[in-house]
Amino acid sequence: MQVKVLLCVMNRQTIGIVGGGQLGRMLTQAAQPLGFSVVVIDPGENSPATQVGATQIEADLYDKAALSKLADQSDYITVEIEHLDADALAELVKEGSVVNPAPSTIKLIQDKYLQKEFLRKAGLDVADFVKIDNYADAQKALKKFGGSMVLKTRHGAYDGRGNAVITNEIELKQAWELFKDTPLYAEELIPFTKELAVMVARSTKGEIAIYPVVETVQERNICLEVLAPAAVGKTTTAKAVKLATKTAELLEGAGVFGIEMFLTKGGKVLINEIAPRVHNSGHYTIEACVTSQFEQHIRAISGLPLGDTSLRAPAAVMINILGERNGDTFLTGLDKAEANPHTKVHIYGKSPTKIDRKMGHITSLGETVDEARQRARQARRSITI
Amino acid sequence: MQVKVLLCVMNRQTIGIVGGGQLGRMLTQAAQPLGFSVVVIDPGENSPATQVGATQIEADLYDKAALSKLADQSDYITVEIEHLDADALAELVKEGSVVNPAPSTIKLIQDKYLQKEFLRKAGLDVADFVKIDNYADAQKALKKFGGSMVLKTRHGAYDGRGNAVITNEIELKQAWELFKDTPLYAEELIPFTKELAVMVARSTKGEIAIYPVVETVQERNICLEVLAPAAVGKTTTAKAVKLATKTAELLEGAGVFGIEMFLTKGGKVLINEIAPRVHNSGHYTIEACVTSQFEQHIRAISGLPLGDTSLRAPAAVMINILGERNGDTFLTGLDKAEANPHTKVHIYGKSPTKIDRKMGHITSLGETVDEARQRARQARRSITI
Repeated sequence: MQVKVLLCVMNRQTIGIVGGGQLGRMLTQAAQPLGFSVVVIDPGENSPATQVGATQIEADLYDKAALSKLADQSDYITVEIEHLDADALAELVKEGSVVNPAPSTIKLIQDKYLQKEFLRKAGLDVADFVKIDNYADAQKALKKFGGSMVLKTRHGAYDGRGNAVITNEIELKQAWELFKDTPLYAEELIPFTKELAVMVARSTKGEIAIYPVVETVQERNICLEVLAPAAVGKTTTAKAVKLATKTAELLEGAGVFGIEMFLTKGGKVLINEIAPRVHNSGHYTIEACVTSQFEQHIRAISGLPLGDTSLRAPAAVMINILGERNGDTFLTGLDKAEANPHTKVHIYGKSPTKIDRKMGHITSLGETVDEARQRARQARRSITI
Repeated sequence: MQVKVLLCVMNRQTIGIVGGGQLGRMLTQAAQPLGFSVVVIDPGENSPATQVGATQIEADLYDKAALSKLADQSDYITVEIEHLDADALAELVKEGSVVNPAPSTIKLIQDKYLQKEFLRKAGLDVADFVKIDNYADAQKALKKFGGSMVLKTRHGAYDGRGNAVITNEIELKQAWELFKDTPLYAEELIPFTKELAVMVARSTKGEIAIYPVVETVQERNICLEVLAPAAVGKTTTAKAVKLATKTAELLEGAGVFGIEMFLTKGGKVLINEIAPRVHNSGHYTIEACVTSQFEQHIRAISGLPLGDTSLRAPAAVMINILGERNGDTFLTGLDKAEANPHTKVHIYGKSPTKIDRKMGHITSLGETVDEARQRARQARRSITI
């Protein structure tokens, strides 16, 4: 019996993921059919990834002992979140671990100001921005940007936390108070007509694969819906694909990256933000593309060839299932939701429910985006959680 | 913390599966996105289903205490194998458990002679057969069937174990020796041109959904390949669909059933065998159909509406990855296999490898069955396990 266990450990490769939330969960589900074991670090008891068979190291993501343990157990290390100790990951690389994307990439992306600087220096289109070191800088910036701007924390922003739209001095003061002692920068407020996103994969061999350009619909700075493909012309699509490709070429390390963009009224496409990981705007790929973003990420970081990214249906719409209250998770309406044709519900196994917490998502396919959207919205209305 | 755990248990429904092999594994993977927890009974340490997040009751499938424990933990009980204690399942129903398919159906199907009797009495087309109680019966049968027949054990046959083709008295004697003291029956040897299969689902509400008619290619009585859709005419398709529908209407209880059929030289379609569960001939549905057989089974037994069974690609071919040797499992060639377009590898996490053990499968999609088959075969050739 001892021998059997030993041999099992020997011949199965293991993916180590920093973070065991819904992204870690869906990465785990994609890794298992390929024969991988998965181990995650997550502070929460019975994390979403653990529920689907990942071994969990129950620890804070910044816990160095936990990271060492992860490294000991893993053939390939990756992340499902960028808010972590990139220096500690760099240490693991020095000690011989394979970490993708590169810790340097994660570190760059962690600081949104440096991220923007990097993109601007590389000649990629971004919204204009300035560093803010003190209140006077912020006042100057507001003037420079014509009386409206977005004040952003350089670190740790997530699902809209850390962004404030400023249109006057009162709002500036309020935001200043809110972000007190946090490193900041400011961006011009882009009068965009659409928010776009492109998932792009880069393998350890430098191969690049681009997913369709999608439209993301945000509210309260949280992604509500993703429409695939985006209803934009060829020129816009080409611009978005070019930006995504260039970005993937620039960043070090392998994996899937989410590139969020603005389409301006004037028809420009600007990079808003990069996620060095699988991304909410790519969940639709599970049902809608030949290779899901999750399988693609596993392929990318483990040296497998990248898969086909093309759509398998004319259109797909993803709607997030956000918590509508605070309390124990209690799912109802699954039967009604599942009665919608070409509709798939994904529940992440989180408890408790919190307002705006991502509890799951729905993807509907259709002949048109409108058809898929109707199906997904009807399914979403059926569900309470 | 106690309260949180308690509430978690309260609000998540649990599927209990008797058996935790590859079918239990893929059922688990289908149940999780719908918000279900899964618990399985399996005698093997760290069963394939356990590896993907099912809680395991490590026990023999016939262990009554284990079945009681499963019942305590489950909202819906089902099976991934028909070789189990159907009477014990019937007891659980009496005690208030929801078991699907009905234990009576499983019991009927367990005895292949009674299964055939049932089908014949219902007017469904089956190969001619007779009960064998002694050697003289067997000799009489061989004469009746014109000198060739298949001698079959009534119980416990699986992947060809328990079937013997008899074309002369010597073979009869050998088989008689082999099957000594086992209840037997004999069937005429059907000179079939193709073996067909249809997966059919019946919900707790009596709703029926039929999957495409596929061709199965068997060798050594083990399924090697499944071709979807089968290259048969409309008349044959209609016959197969009619047989599958009638069968699903006749059987008690909900779930997915696999109906294996023969297409004879004369163009007749005969039912060969029924599996009261998801089936190897339906694995292709994961990538090829709107709703996989695994999700469909979970929907069927849990009172959810049935999903769309139509093909999402013109053609799909599934090839089993059978063990080619006895020893520790060691997977190679995944990179080459995954380089094939529209190809997905499923490894079941079994160890050790044994000759003809089902270690995984490959599904390739294509514009034609030939294209899909070439892709799947090329991928299969790349892999050693």
